[in-house]
Amino acid sequence: MNFRKWVRLGLSAAIACATAGYESGVADEGMWLFNSVPKGQLKSKYGFEPTQEWLDHLMLSSVRFNSGGSASFVSSNGLVLTNHHVASDTLYKLSTAEHNYNEDGFLAKSQAEEIKAPDLELNQLISIEDVTERVNASVSQGLSAPEAAKARQAAMAQIEKESLDKTGLRSDVVTLFGGGKYHLYRYKKYTDVRLVWAPEAGSAFFGGDADNFEYPRYCLDVTLFRVYEDGKPAKIEHFLKMDPNGAKENDLVFVSGNPGRTRRIYTHAAVEFQRDYSMPRTMNYLRRKEILMQQYGLSGPEQKRRAKDDLFGIQNSRKAIGGMLAGLQDPEFASAKKSDEDALRTKVAADPKLSSLSGAWDQIAQAQAKRKELLTQAVGLRTKLYGVAETIVLMAMEDAKPSAERFREYRDSNRESLLQELYSDAPMYDDLERVQLADELARLSEDRGGNDATVRSALQGKGPKERAAELIANTELFSVESRKKLAALGLDGLKKSTDPMIQLVLSMEPEYRRIRELTDSIDETERQAYAKVTEAKFASGGDALYPDATFTLRLSFGQVKGYQSNGGTVPASTTLGGAFDHEAKHLAEEPWVLPKSWQSAKGKFDASTPFNFVCTADIIGGNSGSPVVSKEGAMVGIIFDGNIESLTADFYYTDQVSRAVSVHIAGVLEAMRKIYNAGHLADEMGTPGIWQMRWASDVFVGKVRFLRFLPIADAVVRAADGMGAGVPFNGAG
Amino acid sequence: MNFRKWVRLGLSAAIACATAGYESGVADEGMWLFNSVPKGQLKSKYGFEPTQEWLDHLMLSSVRFNSGGSASFVSSNGLVLTNHHVASDTLYKLSTAEHNYNEDGFLAKSQAEEIKAPDLELNQLISIEDVTERVNASVSQGLSAPEAAKARQAAMAQIEKESLDKTGLRSDVVTLFGGGKYHLYRYKKYTDVRLVWAPEAGSAFFGGDADNFEYPRYCLDVTLFRVYEDGKPAKIEHFLKMDPNGAKENDLVFVSGNPGRTRRIYTHAAVEFQRDYSMPRTMNYLRRKEILMQQYGLSGPEQKRRAKDDLFGIQNSRKAIGGMLAGLQDPEFASAKKSDEDALRTKVAADPKLSSLSGAWDQIAQAQAKRKELLTQAVGLRTKLYGVAETIVLMAMEDAKPSAERFREYRDSNRESLLQELYSDAPMYDDLERVQLADELARLSEDRGGNDATVRSALQGKGPKERAAELIANTELFSVESRKKLAALGLDGLKKSTDPMIQLVLSMEPEYRRIRELTDSIDETERQAYAKVTEAKFASGGDALYPDATFTLRLSFGQVKGYQSNGGTVPASTTLGGAFDHEAKHLAEEPWVLPKSWQSAKGKFDASTPFNFVCTADIIGGNSGSPVVSKEGAMVGIIFDGNIESLTADFYYTDQVSRAVSVHIAGVLEAMRKIYNAGHLADEMGTPGIWQMRWASDVFVGKVRFLRFLPIADAVVRAADGMGAGVPFNGAG
Repeated sequence: MNFRKWVRLGLSAAIACATAGYESGVADEGMWLFNSVPKGQLKSKYGFEPTQEWLDHLMLSSVRFNSGGSASFVSSNGLVLTNHHVASDTLYKLSTAEHNYNEDGFLAKSQAEEIKAPDLELNQLISIEDVTERVNASVSQGLSAPEAAKARQAAMAQIEKESLDKTGLRSDVVTLFGGGKYHLYRYKKYTDVRLVWAPEAGSAFFGGDADNFEYPRYCLDVTLFRVYEDGKPAKIEHFLKMDPNGAKENDLVFVSGNPGRTRRIYTHAAVEFQRDYSMPRTMNYLRRKEILMQQYGLSGPEQKRRAKDDLFGIQNSRKAIGGMLAGLQDPEFASAKKSDEDALRTKVAADPKLSSLSGAWDQIAQAQAKRKELLTQAVGLRTKLYGVAETIVLMAMEDAKPSAERFREYRDSNRESLLQELYSDAPMYDDLERVQLADELARLSEDRGGNDATVRSALQGKGPKERAAELIANTELFSVESRKKLAALGLDGLKKSTDPMIQLVLSMEPEYRRIRELTDSIDETERQAYAKVTEAKFASGGDALYPDATFTLRLSFGQVKGYQSNGGTVPASTTLGGAFDHEAKHLAEEPWVLPKSWQSAKGKFDASTPFNFVCTADIIGGNSGSPVVSKEGAMVGIIFDGNIESLTADFYYTDQVSRAVSVHIAGVLEAMRKIYNAGHLADEMGTPGIWQMRWASDVFVGKVRFLRFLPIADAVVRAADGMGAGVPFNGAG
Repeated sequence: MNFRKWVRLGLSAAIACATAGYESGVADEGMWLFNSVPKGQLKSKYGFEPTQEWLDHLMLSSVRFNSGGSASFVSSNGLVLTNHHVASDTLYKLSTAEHNYNEDGFLAKSQAEEIKAPDLELNQLISIEDVTERVNASVSQGLSAPEAAKARQAAMAQIEKESLDKTGLRSDVVTLFGGGKYHLYRYKKYTDVRLVWAPEAGSAFFGGDADNFEYPRYCLDVTLFRVYEDGKPAKIEHFLKMDPNGAKENDLVFVSGNPGRTRRIYTHAAVEFQRDYSMPRTMNYLRRKEILMQQYGLSGPEQKRRAKDDLFGIQNSRKAIGGMLAGLQDPEFASAKKSDEDALRTKVAADPKLSSLSGAWDQIAQAQAKRKELLTQAVGLRTKLYGVAETIVLMAMEDAKPSAERFREYRDSNRESLLQELYSDAPMYDDLERVQLADELARLSEDRGGNDATVRSALQGKGPKERAAELIANTELFSVESRKKLAALGLDGLKKSTDPMIQLVLSMEPEYRRIRELTDSIDETERQAYAKVTEAKFASGGDALYPDATFTLRLSFGQVKGYQSNGGTVPASTTLGGAFDHEAKHLAEEPWVLPKSWQSAKGKFDASTPFNFVCTADIIGGNSGSPVVSKEGAMVGIIFDGNIESLTADFYYTDQVSRAVSVHIAGVLEAMRKIYNAGHLADEMGTPGIWQMRWASDVFVGKVRFLRFLPIADAVVRAADGMGAGVPFNGAG
């Protein structure tokens, strides 16, 4: 990897171009806010300046999967196109030992056959408002970090509540630039979401873990849903037209989606903490869970099916984070980061107007030392059932306080989303929960040591396996009805409950709270410091900055473009027919086995149809399912991956060989028509209709949970950073 | 796991029986020295007292695989029977992309077809002599730990050299009771070892990683070698007769083999260090390498073949150490250990004659704190090629000193074995070495941090992958001839060499030496302290103690016996026919696919022939391949595994559900005759011959490398304990 010449580590693209040495002079870096698009840069590099109408249409056509992922409206009748791997969470929940929709695919021949997802929430961004001044005004001079954290959180909750009451829209205050800005995002929510069509996993994830993050690729990584309102397909004003002739080499394309998290603002000290402590720990955790799920899957075919969803997510994260860590381990990266930082600090030191900013870097360095101390101290067990028990207990405790003073995920404005998840009737498996709980108890013992009081209390004198078996055998939490009854008991009632999982959470809660408050306080210290770093960056000549990703809607752009690798040229696009060649090259051995549907359709479809392609747009996990659109605003593809070289995007953008990988919409439509008997749906896509735009006033503000693209990793990274388990990754937080 | 009532944590069986509550009153605990067999205990429990002749015959019939494993002579013409998984290291070395002997098996139809193994050394134990007084006399009062370590090492080297000069036999001084006793072991060596017959991996390891450490089992885990002398089959006086009718339920059986390492003498503090620090770290390491090898294997069928040997060893260790760690994580174990220890310390404190022993436990606790500090500091990269470079460099440096003052593995008496390995022409693969080296550079960076001077020097400003590619592309060490040339250069010549691997090792050497000396000093402190603990144990009523395992010959015994599990009875034996049922139960999916040879022979062999069986004998890794013999001294089986419940044997013995797992000799002979066309070899097994016993005077003292049964784990555990990489596990050390 050679980023020495041109990586600018999260400074703006405008600054980057000064040292880029890239052919056109300006790199396509940036995950831009929709209210701060670099129109001038676009015009000068590509001769194209998007109008406000163009931007509004794309924003309103974009969809966020609250479970973690991106998507878009593709018909007036509520069709939503996303990735198969964003949908797979739902496909698993809808599957049983008899019907495996994830493996075998699904097709609704009519709307009556569309199946409701158990707990999906889709968000459509309606507006963005800057509320920085109001949030910062709540933090009086001289408050300690814990006090400041509480005051800031209360102000954010108050703003959200006022907005919800006024508009009826889901309202999230989003922290940008690590604490430099606060914007209020309002969303229309869709919670009646139905499965319409999915191909087989063998086509969507052709090449499996081996091909994941590789290119060239041949994956039909798409799934169609439809949103409903009042029991009928929702009428959608803003949806994307299809352009099967787009995404030609060198074309300018735009990506509108929800990148989950980047850390480009991180200081040198924060990056070192990630490189030497946090990420190696996360990798150990992921490998542990990967082996655990592999071993569980060996116990039988049904266990293999049950393990597969978790296993995919874990392997995906392991490969992604492994790639990031490898990038950080290149000493040149740390040097470049350090020298950029030193230059900025020198500027700050030389300018009396900026003297109040000069302490920020040391504050962040000190915060890393505290994070290191907390690294093994996170309390909580990362299993679904423990999460359920923890939510019930913490909800009872937090509800005793005013909404604004609670842990953020328990505020009133988030309650509907919280309960949708808590009372989801998605299947849970007692053998899987037992295996995972035993492993989590062992992990807790390893993290805190066998003599730790919390560990001893959790184990109750038994080995992890024995204790897990006892907990799983005696808890009632598998039943949604029991959860509701327990949640209705209140704290005193819970204390008297005999449910052993509830009792376990109650015994861990004081230590959970202690660690959580320490972590929240470190977060606040960093927010204040990063606000200063951001101010310094703006002051030192960056007038077109984009903030790190926060699982909120962003606009990226770039060119469709192949690249050089191992001395050869990797072409920008592949074709449907190339999938058969790729299969043959791997002797048609797993995971390179195309499904029967493809074998039967061989010769019936146009093998030269574009299938997958790469572009230089700046994306990351969470962008999965993002529409790729042309200058004309028509859909030409759908993001589903980045190549292995792009995995460093968490910390820096490069475009020498880093590429975003998409399914071409021409390939999607041809496959739907010729392979999947879904021509009626292909015909519906991009089709206009006539109806009334309705801003529903009866929707509530929900909660962004975590990124499907990196589901475990995010929980872990936060745990590794000292955040307790069971705390959802809240992109809006 | 319930060991509360009867586990006595490495105290003698005589003590154990007092609290055992076992039906017969005496547990079958113990890995007994052949010169200290508990004859009285055997007589009182089983009414059988082995004669000296009986013991000598068994000892002389037993064989150690220096590569890690056990075996026995089974014919007068040099046939040696061991496990397929002990042989697999050699089977891989003899395999190519065209001939995969490990997967497909091998049969020599005549002696002319037998294939010489590239670097095997087999040892036959000839005599044992107590040299404790002489070793301890070398350590004068008042020496510091580093000085004492050197003095002790010099005395041991001197004793070995004198013995070698006098007898011509390989002579190893073995540290017993963690430093309480020193015995001189003399071995006859065989280095011309040829492959005779091996079944397919699909039969030897039927059920794969999923069935590993499980029972009931159906594995033909055996392989036949033949030792040669002067180009002819060696004439063997002491070999085992076959008894296909043995190993009936409740039969008393004996196991004669080389258990690799147990840690039953460990104090409470040492066990805590293992539980909370060392073993979790080892597990992270193993999972890391497992995923690495899985991913490498995905890149092609040949890569899959190359990865398989390492992968098997890693998975085996991961499952074994995971089982041990789970045992340690049961809080009851730590409590039992603590209360036994407190009782012993109270006795010591109350007895003025023992006052000099009272500080031992605190010394050991302090040593653990030092080990913890060194845990991430080990220097060296665990790849074959780095090991080659390290050996060449350290040999040049150590050879400047007298033999007795060198690092132990570089002493003169070990040189032949060291060079046999260094100049082995076993295949190395550049792509595999590159992948492993990149991962080891990354691991070093994670362990010591990216800013560490040794890390920065190793990476030379490049990322781990880039640096590994450069090193592998430019080193000459793949060639045995180049190794010899480099080794002949001496230190000054090496410093001028342009080989980048040699230069890398030279740059790491000062830090390697610093850490190695610290570790050797901690080892010495522990040796002195454990000598005191042992003295206290003997003094407090233990007159029949066995020392922890040291990869030297031990005698275990027990009964053939089924056990209770999940409310049902697991029978003591399985049958050849049961393998087909087991295959069908798993839908004949991988890894439950019996090879074609079995399918073709179905109906031709006696399906009721005993195949695998379990007994209560006290074994551990290194015992793989050990003969199981009857009271009559005839072979009834061959150890190949322990069940999952037995994995705690490293730290304590139990016999409630823990069992050693063997292949029944009846199953071996029937399969050889009816499935494998190897009737001529089956006929030869157990057959006497007439010849002259010859104690060769031209053999040299060799080096025990490490246990095949836990090949990576041992290297890792020692690295995790602060021992540098590249230091072989020396059972004789």
